[in-house]
This record gives sequence, C-alpha cells and structure tokens, in this order.
Amino acid sequence: MRIDIITVLPELLESPFAASIMKRAVEKGLVEVHMHNLRDYTDKSYNQVDDYQFGGGAGMVLMIEPIDKCISQLKSERDYDEVIYMTPDGETLNQRMANGLSLLNNVIILCGHYKGVDQRVRDAFITREISIGDYVLSGGELGAAILCDAVIRLIPGVLNNETSALTDTFQDDLLAPPVYTRPSEYKGMKVPDILLSGNFPKIEKWREDQAQKRTEKLRPDLLK
Amino acid sequence: MRIDIITVLPELLESPFAASIMKRAVEKGLVEVHMHNLRDYTDKSYNQVDDYQFGGGAGMVLMIEPIDKCISQLKSERDYDEVIYMTPDGETLNQRMANGLSLLNNVIILCGHYKGVDQRVRDAFITREISIGDYVLSGGELGAAILCDAVIRLIPGVLNNETSALTDTFQDDLLAPPVYTRPSEYKGMKVPDILLSGNFPKIEKWREDQAQKRTEKLRPDLLK
Repeated sequence: MRIDIITVLPELLESPFAASIMKRAVEKGLVEVHMHNLRDYTDKSYNQVDDYQFGGGAGMVLMIEPIDKCISQLKSERDYDEVIYMTPDGETLNQRMANGLSLLNNVIILCGHYKGVDQRVRDAFITREISIGDYVLSGGELGAAILCDAVIRLIPGVLNNETSALTDTFQDDLLAPPVYTRPSEYKGMKVPDILLSGNFPKIEKWREDQAQKRTEKLRPDLLK
Repeated sequence: MRIDIITVLPELLESPFAASIMKRAVEKGLVEVHMHNLRDYTDKSYNQVDDYQFGGGAGMVLMIEPIDKCISQLKSERDYDEVIYMTPDGETLNQRMANGLSLLNNVIILCGHYKGVDQRVRDAFITREISIGDYVLSGGELGAAILCDAVIRLIPGVLNNETSALTDTFQDDLLAPPVYTRPSEYKGMKVPDILLSGNFPKIEKWREDQAQKRTEKLRPDLLK
C-alpha cells in the first residue's frame, strides 16, 4: 500500500510515522508513506497556499491551484484508488471502513487546515470525504494520522500477532472484554479467579459473556 | 489548563505538540502539557511496564503498578478534575464534550497501548473513559493528541480570531457551509455569484441555507 499525504504542516506528522506500528510497517516494506508539502506546489510569493474566503468571515481557505498541481502530478505517476479529504463533515470513520481501506493499493489523503479547502477542490478532485468523529480539529493532519494508524495496522504482516487485531473491540461489533495482567493481587484488588483457573474453554466463555455485557451496558447501539 | 499525558511512547507525541495551534497555545502560556513516560515509574528490569494477559490470548497489557505510581505522584502535587483513559470502548468524543473539557483546570490523560491496561486501573483510578471514534488504533497516544487538539483550540485566546471556532461545523449542530477563495474562476469552475456580490445579509442567508441543506443531506442525525 502507498499513501500520499498532502499537507501544509508535514512537520506535524513526523513523530506519529516515526514510532510504533506505523514505523514498523514502513520498515517492513508493507506500506510507503510520502508527505507532500503543499507550499512546494505554489507559484505565489511567500509560498502562499491560502487566502481569505469570498463573502467575508473568519478563517483562511486553502486555494485550489496548488492542490490541483500536487494531485495532478501524483496521478500522472500512478493510479489512485481514492483521493480522500479529511473533513469533519465527511463520512464517519469506523472499523468496517478501515478494514475496506486496508485493501487498497494507492491512496492520496488531503489534509485541510484553517477553515478548510476551496469547495471546488472537493467537487473536482476528491473521491471520498472522511471524518474521524464529530468534533473540530485545527487541521486534517491528526485525522490523517488516525486514519493511517487504523488502516495500516490491519495490513497482513504489520502486527506481530495477527490474532491480536481480530480480537479487538469492534471487529465483531462487540466491545473487548476486560484484560488483566500480573500481579494477581494488587493492594487488595484481585484478578477474577476464572482467569487464573487454566480452564481455557471456560475462560473463553467468560470473555464472550463479558464482551456481550459490556456492549449491552456501554454501547447498546452496536448490537442493533 | 494543565494536561499530564501518561504514555509508553512519549516520542510519538512530540511533533503534534510542537506544531500549529497546540504549540502556539503552550507558547502563549494558555496551556501546559507534560509528558510522563510510564517506563520511568517501574522497578522492573528492562523498564518493563507490560505483561501477558491472565487467561491467555494475544497482546500485552499495561501493568497497574507503574500507572498507580505515576498517577499517585501527580495527584500528590495538585488536584485533578479528571483522570481520563483513552479507549475505544469509552464515551465517544463530540464537540459538546470538547467544549466542556476546555473549561477544566487539571487533567490527566492515560494512553493505553498494546491490548490496553489492566482492568483494575480503570476500576480504581480512571474517572472518565473517552473514545475518539469506533475504530481501533495502535495505542491511545494519537487519541490523546486528538482530544488535546479539539479541547485546546477552544480555550479563549488560543485561536487568533475567536469567531473562527464559533462558526465551525458542529458548534450549532450544523455542518459548515462551503467555502471558496481566489481565484473566482479556475479552469472553468466558478465561485457562486452570491459570494462575490458584497451583499452581506444575503451571503449570511445563503450560508445558513447551505449549512442546513448540507446537514440534511449528509448528517440528518444531527438535526434530530
């Protein structure tokens, strides 16, 4: 999988891609992530990429021309499955979408910033608009990092133990059961006896019950 | 506002807090963000902070003792309004929650990693569990960055122009209207005439209509 991220703040994304799972996935050659600084695609002075919005109002808007140039150049080099725009009014990301996106080959992710991008960018170049949740962020960069993390960890071979992702919350529309590790007693707080019993079929049953109960209590909407 | 983030991967969080709005908020003295490496709070060899889960299964679990030590030390230094755990089965973050959290003084954010934290941590120390969305990530670090970004930008004085945040998507349960900037025509694509009219009451009306229509089309659930 190849991911091209277009942003005015590539420096914001440095450390998330230089640590943990995403770093490992890149090192293993399972994913390529390329950052493109929008300022490299403008002819304007001071590397200007944004301007005031027509009709007045607070907040700058990213201009169409540098985005067009950057996307056009990438598209001239290879075919892309999706050109994604991170925006709070997009389709809300969930685990099923992440599963689907993890099967794609080439993806462009455009990060908005300030007040967003010129609407004509969305009309003309974007094939999919994705939101990571119902809240507003300073820009699309952290949203892009979230999307990449959610997707990249699902690519076969990225996680050391693939069963680990399959037992995560949401993969079967249930929340995960509680987990415990050593010590078995800490300041009077004990691990449930069943988990120390060594009776694995019973443990499995207990976990299923706990997942079901937890979902009914906290997220009954997932069971519908 | 003071935010203490407890993590096994402080390096993952470096660049998001060193760029853009969050950096500016720290520089202006409007927020303090402190990272705490969980590995500094363990007595075990190799700075061990995680262990296999009781009952078997893939994925490591963060141990209670180092987390207890870190949280206890912080609590001995000042009072905290909330001790938040980032987890996909927590309460789902939305703009209203972000608004509320932006009013707090001192907050601890615990990032899970691997398979999560020992359930006793959640039972004994956590006052609030927050999810940024219905998908699984490699760890709570990026979720913590998202939460901080969503909250910090709402603190008065952080954004240069405060009306900018108030006209964002979700602040009035409506999606934001489309925005446009120069040039007024690009490769045959034109900006709507109304935005070039200079008739500000009409522009305001057009924006309200667009926000309403866009919300009805894309997110009718927000109107309920």
